[in-house]
This record gives sequence, C-alpha cells and structure tokens, in this order.
Amino acid sequence: MFMRIDHIGIACHDLEAKIKLFAETFELTVVAREVNEEQGVKEAMLLVADGAGGGSYIQLLEPLSPDSPVGKFLAKRGEGVHHVAFGVPDVADAMDKIGAKGVRLLDERPRHGTMGSQIAFLHPKDVGGMLTELVQAARP
Amino acid sequence: MFMRIDHIGIACHDLEAKIKLFAETFELTVVAREVNEEQGVKEAMLLVADGAGGGSYIQLLEPLSPDSPVGKFLAKRGEGVHHVAFGVPDVADAMDKIGAKGVRLLDERPRHGTMGSQIAFLHPKDVGGMLTELVQAARP
Repeated sequence: MFMRIDHIGIACHDLEAKIKLFAETFELTVVAREVNEEQGVKEAMLLVADGAGGGSYIQLLEPLSPDSPVGKFLAKRGEGVHHVAFGVPDVADAMDKIGAKGVRLLDERPRHGTMGSQIAFLHPKDVGGMLTELVQAARP
Repeated sequence: MFMRIDHIGIACHDLEAKIKLFAETFELTVVAREVNEEQGVKEAMLLVADGAGGGSYIQLLEPLSPDSPVGKFLAKRGEGVHHVAFGVPDVADAMDKIGAKGVRLLDERPRHGTMGSQIAFLHPKDVGGMLTELVQAARP
C-alpha cells in the first residue's frame, strides 16, 4: 500500500526563516513553494530524496491565520512535526482499504495537495496519535 | 547529506497493540524487534520502502519505564510522533557538518541504533522543534 515516506510536515511561525535554516543546515533544496488557501497555509517542499514513484520531502508549513488548523496546532503545541505523509499508488483505493479497517478518514474524497498531488488525511486517534496523510503524487 | 527519510519514531503505550494496528491497517511487515536498554525502549521496525542505501520505516517505541525519555514524552504529550530520522552515508561526518552550523548535538559521538545502525540526535530547538536523528545504516 505504501511506496515511500512522502514527507514530514513541520509547522512553523516564520516560513522564510525555517526554509533558510533547513536548507543550510541539511544542505537541502527547495523544489516548490505554494499557498494553499483551502488548508490555510503557505508552504515549501525541500527535497530529501528522489524516487521513481515520487520523492521524499520536508514540508514546512506557516499558517495564513491563527484560526487555521496549523495556526491552532502552533498555539497549542508549538513548532514541530504536524503530520506525516505516505506515498500510495492510488489515493482513492488506499482510502477505501484503510476506511474498511475502521480508521476514520478526515476527507470524504481526495483533495488537492502540494505539487499537483491528490491527498487525504486519516484521523490521528485511529493511527497512534499521528496525523497521517496519504499522497498520490502527480507523477505516474 | 540526506539519502532518505529513514524512519518516523512513534511513541506508544502498548507496543504489541500498535504493531497489530499499523501492520494490519497499512499492510506493513515487521522486520525487526529490539530492546534498547540504553535508550529505555522496546521497539519494532515496520518496513515502508526498501532502498539501496537503507530502508524507510515506521518505528514503534514503548518505554521500559515512566522515567525514560519516551516515558516522559508519553506523559507530557501522549501517543504520537516522537522523532524523525534521516539516513546519511556517514553519521560522524554529518555530525561534524551540522554541528559546525551551530546546531547542538545531543550525542558527542555516534551510538548504537536499531538494526546495527550508528546514530546521533540533534537538539529539537535548533531544528524547528523536531527531535531529529541521523542514521547510518549497517548496510553499505
């Protein structure tokens, strides 16, 4: 079902400062920057490793407002890991299989993720306290 | 510097229950179980993806006692992501490079990690609130 750890999503207060920190400290390259109004974040993807089915990234997330999901996370827990995403070949199929096992899905159908991907989130309480994202990369 | 996301370390109260949950929900295979007295944990590695330089895993961690680092983490934050680990070709070299950039190392020298690896931890406050581990896999 899983093809890779697609990305680690890290919530931060200052996207530009954290891009600089991560890029310089770990010698990583920024491969995408986006604003996702639906999710209330501006974000950057730093490439950790490339692969045939999709890459592995550090995703840095700055909330667009304090009452967005990432804004609330920061107020409650501070900066750090917000979610973990796994690459799947077909997100709708993975949602069906995982949902059939009793795990609650936070999305009824796939929605738009970073870099043209199709994504869905799982309820963290049903998977060990980890907010978990499924990612079908835009690349075949 | 980074070759892969090596693993996501997840703190849990009941290792056997969480192995069952993750293995069944995500169709993952347990490839190693260990007790690490030095770190005060018993743990399991579930393979997400294999690679030439090393695999990517979900690592489940149950504390051996409440006053261990993972025991204290659970008491404070509950179950969830405890740390994130990145694969490097040479952990001592990565420690030197990262330390030279002003990031505090929690280990003075590499120590023994899961499956024969050599590891070191970085101070989470210096890398965006994420407890970060460097892993040199036992495999070449």
